[in-house]
Amino acid sequence: MNLLIDNIGQLVTVAAGGRRVKTGADMRDLGIVTDAALLIENGLIVRSGPAGSIAVPEEMEVMDAEGRVVLPGFVDSHTHTVFAGSREHEFALRAEGKSYQEIADAGGGILSTMRATREATKKELYRSAERRLTAMLRHGTTTVEIKSGYGLSPEAEIRMLEVIADLKRDHFASVVATFLGAHAVPPEYAGDRQGYVDRICDYMMPYVATKRLATFVDVFCEQGYFDLRATEQIILEAKRHGLVPKLHADQLTAMGASELGARHNAVSVDHLEKTTPEGIAALAASQTIATVLPGCSLFLNHPYAPARAMIDAGIPVAIATDFNPGSQMCFSMPMMLTLACTQMRLTPEEAVTAATLNGAAALGISAETGSIEPGKNADVVVYDVHDFRTIAYHYGVNHVWKVIKSGVVLDF
Amino acid sequence: MNLLIDNIGQLVTVAAGGRRVKTGADMRDLGIVTDAALLIENGLIVRSGPAGSIAVPEEMEVMDAEGRVVLPGFVDSHTHTVFAGSREHEFALRAEGKSYQEIADAGGGILSTMRATREATKKELYRSAERRLTAMLRHGTTTVEIKSGYGLSPEAEIRMLEVIADLKRDHFASVVATFLGAHAVPPEYAGDRQGYVDRICDYMMPYVATKRLATFVDVFCEQGYFDLRATEQIILEAKRHGLVPKLHADQLTAMGASELGARHNAVSVDHLEKTTPEGIAALAASQTIATVLPGCSLFLNHPYAPARAMIDAGIPVAIATDFNPGSQMCFSMPMMLTLACTQMRLTPEEAVTAATLNGAAALGISAETGSIEPGKNADVVVYDVHDFRTIAYHYGVNHVWKVIKSGVVLDF
Repeated sequence: MNLLIDNIGQLVTVAAGGRRVKTGADMRDLGIVTDAALLIENGLIVRSGPAGSIAVPEEMEVMDAEGRVVLPGFVDSHTHTVFAGSREHEFALRAEGKSYQEIADAGGGILSTMRATREATKKELYRSAERRLTAMLRHGTTTVEIKSGYGLSPEAEIRMLEVIADLKRDHFASVVATFLGAHAVPPEYAGDRQGYVDRICDYMMPYVATKRLATFVDVFCEQGYFDLRATEQIILEAKRHGLVPKLHADQLTAMGASELGARHNAVSVDHLEKTTPEGIAALAASQTIATVLPGCSLFLNHPYAPARAMIDAGIPVAIATDFNPGSQMCFSMPMMLTLACTQMRLTPEEAVTAATLNGAAALGISAETGSIEPGKNADVVVYDVHDFRTIAYHYGVNHVWKVIKSGVVLDF
Repeated sequence: MNLLIDNIGQLVTVAAGGRRVKTGADMRDLGIVTDAALLIENGLIVRSGPAGSIAVPEEMEVMDAEGRVVLPGFVDSHTHTVFAGSREHEFALRAEGKSYQEIADAGGGILSTMRATREATKKELYRSAERRLTAMLRHGTTTVEIKSGYGLSPEAEIRMLEVIADLKRDHFASVVATFLGAHAVPPEYAGDRQGYVDRICDYMMPYVATKRLATFVDVFCEQGYFDLRATEQIILEAKRHGLVPKLHADQLTAMGASELGARHNAVSVDHLEKTTPEGIAALAASQTIATVLPGCSLFLNHPYAPARAMIDAGIPVAIATDFNPGSQMCFSMPMMLTLACTQMRLTPEEAVTAATLNGAAALGISAETGSIEPGKNADVVVYDVHDFRTIAYHYGVNHVWKVIKSGVVLDF
C-alpha cells in the first residue's frame, strides 16, 4: 500500500484541481509531468515530484519505471460484463449482411443472452465475470461499471445484481452497479410492455434500492424497446428511491432520449450515435455527461457518435467500451482510444481525459479516482511506452507493464 | 520437432488439396475437423485424426489442447516491420484533421521515417525489428513479409535488406524480403523522379538480384509518388532480373495500378481502397492476388477496399496488416480479421482463408505454409477459445495460447 514509483518518463496526471469533470479545452490539458516520481501511501496518492527527489524509508517498496509512462487507471463507465453464453454466430450473420434488428427478430440479440444468463448458475456468472474483470485490469482498467439487464425477471435481475455485488466485494477492480431491468421486454411480457415497466417500478426497483444493489438505474430508450414515456416513468421512480438515472440514448434512432436525460439530470446519457443538434444543445445546457461507445460503432458498422461536435459544444464527454457479447465484444479501453482518435477525431489528450476523469464523473466518483492527485485512490497504470500517445497510436497490443490498484502492485 | 497435439476442439485446416490459392465459395470452406489430434514430425505436418486416436512413441512430446482451437499460423504478406523512429505526432495531427498528404507535405510521412532509418545503425534496426517479429509471433503470425523502402538510397536500401536477411536467418518467424526502393522519391532526387527510377533500375536492382536480397519488387504506384510509366519500367526491370512484382495500388487514387499489375502478372496488388469496377474486372481475369489492408483504412479513416465485391467476382483475396509507423501502427492479424468482418463484410471463414493460405500465395509459398496439410510446415497456433470465430469476434485481446513454428513449441 506504500510505494514510490520513480523515474517515470511521463506522469500523465489528468489533474482536475477539484473539478468533478473536464470540458472544452481543459480536456486537452493532461497535466503531464516529465521525469517524475510518485509517492503512494495507504493506498492513496500523496504527491509527485521530480525523478529521484523523493526520499523514502528503507522499508518502502520502490518501483523503477525506467522512463515508462504512467496514467490513471481507465474508468470503464458502461459495460455489461456479467453474462453467460456467447454470440459469435450473430457476428458471422452480421458479416453476411443481417442487421442488428433482423438478428434480434430471429431470436438473437439481448434475449439470446437473457436465455443463457437465466440458465447459468450464480457461480458460473461470477466466475466468468471475474475472469473478464481480471483481464480488464491487465489491460489498464481499474474501475468498471456493470449493468444488470440479461435477467429481465425479478429473480434473474436480482441474481445478476448480487453477482455484481459479490464482484464488488471480492475483486481488485472497483465495481459500480447499475440496474438495467429495462434492457428489453422479456418474453413473459411480450405484447404488454407497460406491464413490464410497472413490474420494474413497483416491484424490482424498491427491492434494488432497499438492498442497495445498484447506484444507477439505466433504460434502453429506443424504438422497439422503451419509449420516452416508459423511460420517464422509470427515471422518476428511480429518483424517488434515491437511485441516479443513466440512459442508453440515440443509439439506433433519435427520439429525444438525450433531451429527456438532460431534463432529468441523468448522470450520463450513453451511445449517442444518432444524436441531433437539438440533443447536443440540450446536453450543452445541462450537467449530464455524454458517454460515447466507439467500439459499438466499429462492431456493428454503425455511424460514430458526434463526439467532436459535443466537445466543441462544451459537453463533458466520456468514453467507455460497452463491453457485451452482442454488439461490442471488446473490453480494451486502449482500443477505444484508438477508435476515438481515428474515427471521432478526438485528440489523444481528449481521449485520455474522456477515458479517465470524465468516466469517473459519469459514475459520480471523480473525487476518488480518474486522476493522479493527492488524496485520490492510487489507481495507477504503468505502460511500457515512452509517449502516452503510443497507447492509442500502436493499437491491437497490450502495452500495460504494471497495474497498481489502491496502492497495491497487482501480480497477475 | 516431433509433437502430437491432442484434444483439439476445432482443427481449422484451411486445406486446399493442392490448390495454391482459394477463391469464391472455396474461401468459406475451412476444412474444420472437430475433436481432432495433429501429428507433427521433423517440423512438418504428418497427419490428423480423431482426438485420442493417434498413438505415439513414449518419448514424443504430447500437447493437450483441452478443447482449444488450432489454426495455421497467420501469413502477414505486406509489412514494413524494419524502421526507426515513431510517428505518434502525426497520429495526433491526423486527429486534428490533417490529411495524409498535408502531413507528408509538412515533412512528415514516409520521408520522416526515412530520415530516422538512415540515421539508425544496422544493429538498432535489427534489434527493434526483432522485437516486433517476436511480438507478431506471440499474436499468431508465423510468416512475415518485410519491405525495404525507408532507405531510398542505394546504401540505405541495401542496409535495410541486409537487416531483413539477418532476421530471415536468425528469427523463428519465416521472413520474406521485398525490395521497395520505389516507396517515395528521396530528397536527393527532388524534382528528378526519373533520375531516381533509373537509379533503382540500373544500379540498385542488379545488386539486390545478384545478392539475392529480395524475392519481390514493390512500387508505391500513386499520384505524387510513382506513376504508371515509372511503375512499368520498374516492373519490367524486376522481371528481367528474375524478381517478382508486387504493387501498392489504388490506395489514394485510382489511376490504373491494379490493371497494370494484372497485365504484368504481379503476384499481388495491395491496398485497393479506391479500386474501380474496371480494376476488379482486370484482376478477375488475371492470376494476381488482391491483398487488402483494412487496418490502414481504420488508422487513416479512409474507405475500405471493396473486398466483398472482389471475392464475389472470383478474385483471390488476401488480408495483411501493412504494419508501419505512419499509416498503420498495428501488427495484429486477429485485429485485421475483426476489421475485415465488420467493415468489409467478409465472413469469419473468408477472413481466415485470406489471412493464411491466400496470404501465403501472395508470397508464392502456399505449397509450404498457410494450411494444415500433410507435408506442409508445422506452422500452427493454438488459441484459448472454443470457436475459431471468437478470434475475430472478441477483439482487442490476444487469444494465443501456444505458437508452434516448424514443429517447435515456442517458449516466449
